[in-house]
Amino acid sequence: MKSLRFVGREFQSESSVVKVGGVSIGGGDFSVIAGPCAVESRDQILSTARAVASAGAGILRGDAYKPRTSPYAFQGLGQEALDLLVEARAETGLPFVAEVVDPRHVEAVSSVADMLRIGTRNMANYVLLKEVGSQPKPVMLKRSRTATVGEWLDAAEYIYDSGNHDIVLVERGIRTFETSTRNTLDISAVPVLKTETHLPVLVDPSHASGRADIVPSLSRAALAVGADGLLIDVHPDPPRAIVDGAQALTIEEFEALMGQLRALESLLG
Amino acid sequence: MKSLRFVGREFQSESSVVKVGGVSIGGGDFSVIAGPCAVESRDQILSTARAVASAGAGILRGDAYKPRTSPYAFQGLGQEALDLLVEARAETGLPFVAEVVDPRHVEAVSSVADMLRIGTRNMANYVLLKEVGSQPKPVMLKRSRTATVGEWLDAAEYIYDSGNHDIVLVERGIRTFETSTRNTLDISAVPVLKTETHLPVLVDPSHASGRADIVPSLSRAALAVGADGLLIDVHPDPPRAIVDGAQALTIEEFEALMGQLRALESLLG
Amino acid sequence: MKSLRFVGREFQSESSVVKVGGVSIGGGDFSVIAGPCAVESRDQILSTARAVASAGAGILRGDAYKPRTSPYAFQGLGQEALDLLVEARAETGLPFVAEVVDPRHVEAVSSVADMLRIGTRNMANYVLLKEVGSQPKPVMLKRSRTATVGEWLDAAEYIYDSGNHDIVLVERGIRTFETSTRNTLDISAVPVLKTETHLPVLVDPSHASGRADIVPSLSRAALAVGADGLLIDVHPDPPRAIVDGAQALTIEEFEALMGQLRALESLLG
Amino acid sequence: MKSLRFVGREFQSESSVVKVGGVSIGGGDFSVIAGPCAVESRDQILSTARAVASAGAGILRGDAYKPRTSPYAFQGLGQEALDLLVEARAETGLPFVAEVVDPRHVEAVSSVADMLRIGTRNMANYVLLKEVGSQPKPVMLKRSRTATVGEWLDAAEYIYDSGNHDIVLVERGIRTFETSTRNTLDISAVPVLKTETHLPVLVDPSHASGRADIVPSLSRAALAVGADGLLIDVHPDPPRAIVDGAQALTIEEFEALMGQLRALESLLG
Repeated sequence: MKSLRFVGREFQSESSVVKVGGVSIGGGDFSVIAGPCAVESRDQILSTARAVASAGAGILRGDAYKPRTSPYAFQGLGQEALDLLVEARAETGLPFVAEVVDPRHVEAVSSVADMLRIGTRNMANYVLLKEVGSQPKPVMLKRSRTATVGEWLDAAEYIYDSGNHDIVLVERGIRTFETSTRNTLDISAVPVLKTETHLPVLVDPSHASGRADIVPSLSRAALAVGADGLLIDVHPDPPRAIVDGAQALTIEEFEALMGQLRALESLLG
Repeated sequence: MKSLRFVGREFQSESSVVKVGGVSIGGGDFSVIAGPCAVESRDQILSTARAVASAGAGILRGDAYKPRTSPYAFQGLGQEALDLLVEARAETGLPFVAEVVDPRHVEAVSSVADMLRIGTRNMANYVLLKEVGSQPKPVMLKRSRTATVGEWLDAAEYIYDSGNHDIVLVERGIRTFETSTRNTLDISAVPVLKTETHLPVLVDPSHASGRADIVPSLSRAALAVGADGLLIDVHPDPPRAIVDGAQALTIEEFEALMGQLRALESLLG
Repeated sequence: MKSLRFVGREFQSESSVVKVGGVSIGGGDFSVIAGPCAVESRDQILSTARAVASAGAGILRGDAYKPRTSPYAFQGLGQEALDLLVEARAETGLPFVAEVVDPRHVEAVSSVADMLRIGTRNMANYVLLKEVGSQPKPVMLKRSRTATVGEWLDAAEYIYDSGNHDIVLVERGIRTFETSTRNTLDISAVPVLKTETHLPVLVDPSHASGRADIVPSLSRAALAVGADGLLIDVHPDPPRAIVDGAQALTIEEFEALMGQLRALESLLG
Repeated sequence: MKSLRFVGREFQSESSVVKVGGVSIGGGDFSVIAGPCAVESRDQILSTARAVASAGAGILRGDAYKPRTSPYAFQGLGQEALDLLVEARAETGLPFVAEVVDPRHVEAVSSVADMLRIGTRNMANYVLLKEVGSQPKPVMLKRSRTATVGEWLDAAEYIYDSGNHDIVLVERGIRTFETSTRNTLDISAVPVLKTETHLPVLVDPSHASGRADIVPSLSRAALAVGADGLLIDVHPDPPRAIVDGAQALTIEEFEALMGQLRALESLLG
């Protein structure tokens, strides 16, 4: 990790706090970003936004553009989804984060979203990293499922070096031989990152596991290990979700989890 | 995992409790097994045993026989170490667990130890599994760093099918491409196992990470994720440890960790 | 691999032949694409082009834009490099392949290069895949070091479905725990792909191993296993290469290898 | 690999030749060891032995004791199988190799077999390594599917240091995320080992791939990359094999492969 200039602890010993809308990530509070994997309809995104806001989530997630392994899978609603996210924000007050996949769309998404997300497939898409590094909204950088911690920090360095210092890292599982989960959550990456970098670190237990049944226990582990928050899939009707329904919590499950996390946070805080 | 007969939840829905000396693993309490990786001297094992007992550990670890990657590395003190562990038990009251590596030694170790351990390199040594399955002391079965959860349960099935039902599983990290930690702790394996099997599950943050600096945060995560306890390296003078010093907590660090765990356990319990 | 429509053997049982300039890949001949990893100077690219042409390579490689892990590493000469590649082609008659990393550069590179390359980091950059799928030059698609064969074919499907059917796959090593080589060459992927798809398959022993000393033996293995050709790093002075010198063959080593491959090809052909 | 004393090239620059019965492994010829994964019946082993001898194999394989992932899978015929292997040798003149899994059986197997095999699950079973290192028959050491090349050589060092210098290494695939093959054949390990050690190196394409359809192409690649020979599964009726039938060649397929290998060897030799 010798090539780091700006995102390393040597450059800045104090932990960074990133502001998303009016919400802080990294300032000691445990932030929960929740919502559906993809925006599917007006009713779906509005009902989910209301529910996660009411349960205590600070930021809404919901994608307009989905990078999918197959070209024949649902690719997202695009601009229509962005409009619905704006409407959900107006109603609930929740700022929202949305993925960008094309450098030519960065300006359009940046003009409406509160935070841009770089997905796991694009962590090493340096063209896109420079583009989000050149606009003013904070950036959420997910780990590539095949990146070492060092390569991930190098990717963050691309964004920082392009002028944008508001970067949040999200551990979302790496690829291993184990098959009982979709990926293997590298929980150790959280304390390792806390040593190496001043940037905030979140955990995405939904994509890491692909299994809603273990998302609550992994969420508690993320809080206990020292993460700054969670990125979590919530859907009003998971079996009917178009994308990744098997890993989404129902609204009731999410509310129960939030209660557990609040109790744990008050102890560990 | 279709070949499971006895260790699966389908066979026994109630969670098993394993008795080691007078100590229970799996009955709802969070068990901490601590001590040096290898028994090195009388002074080392006795001072460590006293300290971990005083800090609240329930069981002592300390190996007499060490399987080492190189034939020229320290291989353990053998019978002398077993005698010292017996002495440490007499003084502190802590039962102890010791590794077996040779089917011809099982009877001798079983006659003095309170629990036998199968190390990661021997998880698929079916000859040894059958041998520990045919003696009365409880068995700790570490995951091979290359085993899927399904293969690990198959290994447990060998022990159970040989007649010994007192089996405790220990997640200790799997091999991946990540290099900032020695192995990658598969924390998700804990809730997955809780679904698949009735056997107790511990976490070994020391061998999983190889880094004492992140052992405390991984230990908290193990408790929060639902593990039944920890297996943890403690050494009175880690820099002078013959084996795996970089991952051992000092006695002071272990005492501090135990305080944190007690507070967390009272909340989560 | 159920989502494949066009690149699968079920759709087209006959093996595809892809034309690059006047050179065929996949028609039964063993194609060798050689040159420096990056274009560094006029003298470097011209001298290498002459040498590899004279030794029997059919296509020249040499990148103008380099995606690098660190933002502070050499990123390529850009347009200047493309001009030098055009000059090298005029002198030697070799068509050339160059990497594209930005969808906004595809048209410019496509207007001069004979073939476009998608590098390992961009295999799942679907925006870029669609862009190269919408222009007329053939496309070389390298495997992501973390992709299964199935995911790789899905990426090829993106290009095919966008209208471009001239696709060549390149196996270049996957990420594993082994450290004696930079990646692990998945040689089995070649015969597996020959079963699954009609597209030609090349092997890149240079990036797979990162070690020039074993590139010749891996090249022979690639021919023997049934690959349609090689993509290979050659540099006039590897110790002074700016990028990946440790894996580049000298011109003399490349000439010797070509002699071995010709003899082997005449036997296996 | 600093801990190597005896198996490294620094200790002995000349390549070792290991004698098995009257057959040499490592002396420049390409050795083929063939037979069924497990001895199943008198008819099966005798008919296979005659066929592989006739096709040019130099050594017979066939196991008496099988380590199996599940305790409820077929575990081998034991002593009865050893008696049948002795009979097959008497009739065909082929020496045979058989696996040992229990240190208490080493003497019995060693008294009849021409070579002992350590399987992938036991590569790090140091007790067993020392035991086979203390008897006079040559030893075949398969790589653990999770071992680095360095750890594998350390395991060979255990055998050598125990007094037995007749060691043959077998690459049989490592565990990765790829699922189209059972394991990932690490073909690069062959030339890497040729640099690091003087011991002969074979390739097992059957266990590496788990797919008979690609065994012939992987066998050619093994010869071309510089391996000293093959270990290969052959069965008179693969669909009815009790163990690993999907990866066994029929006798006809084996005969065809041997013809290809002889032609290739005469060119490369």
